Amino acid sequence: MSDSGATSLPGLATLADVGRDAVRGGYSRHLFDDADRTLREWFVERASRIGLDVERDRNGNLWAWWGAPGPDALVTGSHLDSVPGGGAFDGPLGVVSALDALERLIASGASPGRPVAVVVFAEEEGSRFGVACLGSRLLTGGIAPERALRLVDAEGHDLAEVLAGAGVDPAHVGRDEQALGRIGLFVELHVEQGRGLVDLGAPIGLAAGILAHGRWRLIVRGQGNHAGATPMGDRRDPMVVAGALIARVPELAAAHPGSRATVGRVTAVPGGTNVIASRVDVMLDARAEDDATTRALVAEIADCAAAAAAERGCTVELVEESWADRVEFAPSPRAELAAALGGPPVLATGAGHDAGVLAPLVPTAMLFVRNPTGVSHAPEEFASAEDCAAGVDALEAVLRSRLRGAA
Amino acid sequence: MSDSGATSLPGLATLADVGRDAVRGGYSRHLFDDADRTLREWFVERASRIGLDVERDRNGNLWAWWGAPGPDALVTGSHLDSVPGGGAFDGPLGVVSALDALERLIASGASPGRPVAVVVFAEEEGSRFGVACLGSRLLTGGIAPERALRLVDAEGHDLAEVLAGAGVDPAHVGRDEQALGRIGLFVELHVEQGRGLVDLGAPIGLAAGILAHGRWRLIVRGQGNHAGATPMGDRRDPMVVAGALIARVPELAAAHPGSRATVGRVTAVPGGTNVIASRVDVMLDARAEDDATTRALVAEIADCAAAAAAERGCTVELVEESWADRVEFAPSPRAELAAALGGPPVLATGAGHDAGVLAPLVPTAMLFVRNPTGVSHAPEEFASAEDCAAGVDALEAVLRSRLRGAA
Repeated sequence: MSDSGATSLPGLATLADVGRDAVRGGYSRHLFDDADRTLREWFVERASRIGLDVERDRNGNLWAWWGAPGPDALVTGSHLDSVPGGGAFDGPLGVVSALDALERLIASGASPGRPVAVVVFAEEEGSRFGVACLGSRLLTGGIAPERALRLVDAEGHDLAEVLAGAGVDPAHVGRDEQALGRIGLFVELHVEQGRGLVDLGAPIGLAAGILAHGRWRLIVRGQGNHAGATPMGDRRDPMVVAGALIARVPELAAAHPGSRATVGRVTAVPGGTNVIASRVDVMLDARAEDDATTRALVAEIADCAAAAAAERGCTVELVEESWADRVEFAPSPRAELAAALGGPPVLATGAGHDAGVLAPLVPTAMLFVRNPTGVSHAPEEFASAEDCAAGVDALEAVLRSRLRGAA
Repeated sequence: MSDSGATSLPGLATLADVGRDAVRGGYSRHLFDDADRTLREWFVERASRIGLDVERDRNGNLWAWWGAPGPDALVTGSHLDSVPGGGAFDGPLGVVSALDALERLIASGASPGRPVAVVVFAEEEGSRFGVACLGSRLLTGGIAPERALRLVDAEGHDLAEVLAGAGVDPAHVGRDEQALGRIGLFVELHVEQGRGLVDLGAPIGLAAGILAHGRWRLIVRGQGNHAGATPMGDRRDPMVVAGALIARVPELAAAHPGSRATVGRVTAVPGGTNVIASRVDVMLDARAEDDATTRALVAEIADCAAAAAAERGCTVELVEESWADRVEFAPSPRAELAAALGGPPVLATGAGHDAGVLAPLVPTAMLFVRNPTGVSHAPEEFASAEDCAAGVDALEAVLRSRLRGAA
């Protein structure tokens, strides 16, 4: 599907071979790896070609400006990084569509009237350093720079080291009042990560809100030992605790309608086939309609883990790795966008976005493009050429209406 | 405990800093990695220093000869590689003790009478290529060379490539009649991987037999998707299937007294925290008193996996990665060793050994040294200086008795 995905927009076709994952399928593009650097170079080149001036902010996010950077800017964009083995659309569709829409506006002889920018947020998926929306969280102060700089990737490199290696000074990372103060409106276009628009028969939709969500690490500790020589009754095996917990997560989540809880990754230490693990880390992603329900669900999962551990002579520690409050996109920019687009459907989503990080601080809205498979974070993620074109049209209409408004 | 372990014998102290695992604790020494190469160089140097001639066989195993290599040789030794994060004794204790015992024999002016060799078997733990006792299995024809050469490590390198890189010609790998034909008796000394000798209050014991055992990969396939945007009811999550299976493994094993079943490693594809996995590989180690019980246990575990998968819209595939029949060490060499050692206790073990691979083909026996923690394949593995010295004394006595016997 990645190949057909690439043909949905010419800009996506250009990126079709960057960061392909031969093992998982789809794409693996992570903060400042080779693929991410290539995508960033492509962005600078493509934006410059249509006359935009590109700058990198203090947190590694890219901004391509039409007109002088300044206050009350109309900002659109998304991210270029992916989950491991992700699809072709999640992130790049919003960046490619923004550049396409802006190119058309410029070609039509429109005058900016107010500053316009296309933004690329860094490490939106959190696939390298574990914290989603890292670039926008740093920009808004949603994560403390001291904490962020100590985040470590799978190879043991910390963020400070990786940023410095890419020429981003770790000493200047953190809340960026100047960059924030320039945003008059942020609109993020994104492929839908579910079947809402498919079921409604609509190519385009607007976001209502984002579920409260976060990531937790459940560290289960037991006693490492020999898999063959240790009788079943003498074991304190943290993997069995992890299994018992993972098996119960769906029913715990289902008890809170609309909630979601997922274990997508489990790491055993030492991780030998003929070795009873001494420690197993279970990575939990949990989301619900509101903050309190999400917290309650995670507490129930932690209680379940503690009980499973106690039964088997193990212990459990719960570590919160990231947290995002429930986001309600403000009715004001949404109503104006809805008017400009002829009243498309409005949907809630369980997926986190940079738009959700910015929403509490600046006027923010989100546009979704229909995904016929409903699948995301996997190679099957898709959007048709027609629907992608409708997305660019919608973004162009939104920009045009807001330029007029400012003129 | 590794530090105290290193002081148990001077030879182990020499190796105390080779291949330490800063992340897992203990040691990680895998076929032809830097640590394994260093250990091999140490073996060649140490063996040469006491007058032995070292040769590497067609399968990457090392042999240090006292007297000209030839038939009816008295062979002792073990392995130098470890599980990830393993202890200081599993493997090296047998090699160090063999060299110490032989050094004393030589220093005492004994004459070989019959050829004597110390052997180091390659990749006993199977930690790099997934098949335990790989060096002895290749030597005996217990694994087909074509299959072995295609085994792939975690970085995607196959065995053929790794052997060639170390100067072992992949074209000549496989059953080695010459090397096998020279073995008159093989005695492996090993730290005990359980509490048998502790409970009996004995420093030294002899092995009765080894449980039938093997390794299997259970591949669970589902549908990868977004962890936040996919409602719980729409999921086909292979991780939940894996959890349900892992949680039931202990009771399935416990239903066959004396059996053991362990999941020490789980790999999710793609392995993102905010991604429902599309595939999860569950690595299973299973062992039982006899071949039929082991096979029955694995079939029950596979049935349990299939039922858990069917319930959740997933599928399961069972792949056998390695297999070792139940081993009964022959009464003949054991009785003679028991006589030479004053009748130490005789114990069965659940741990596989190169001695178990050789036992069906050549006269073979095993000596165990008491492990006060009972723990193995973990940094807590231990043997006291007194017990290690008793092990060297026992090995020397065995060699001396068998040299007399041959003289």
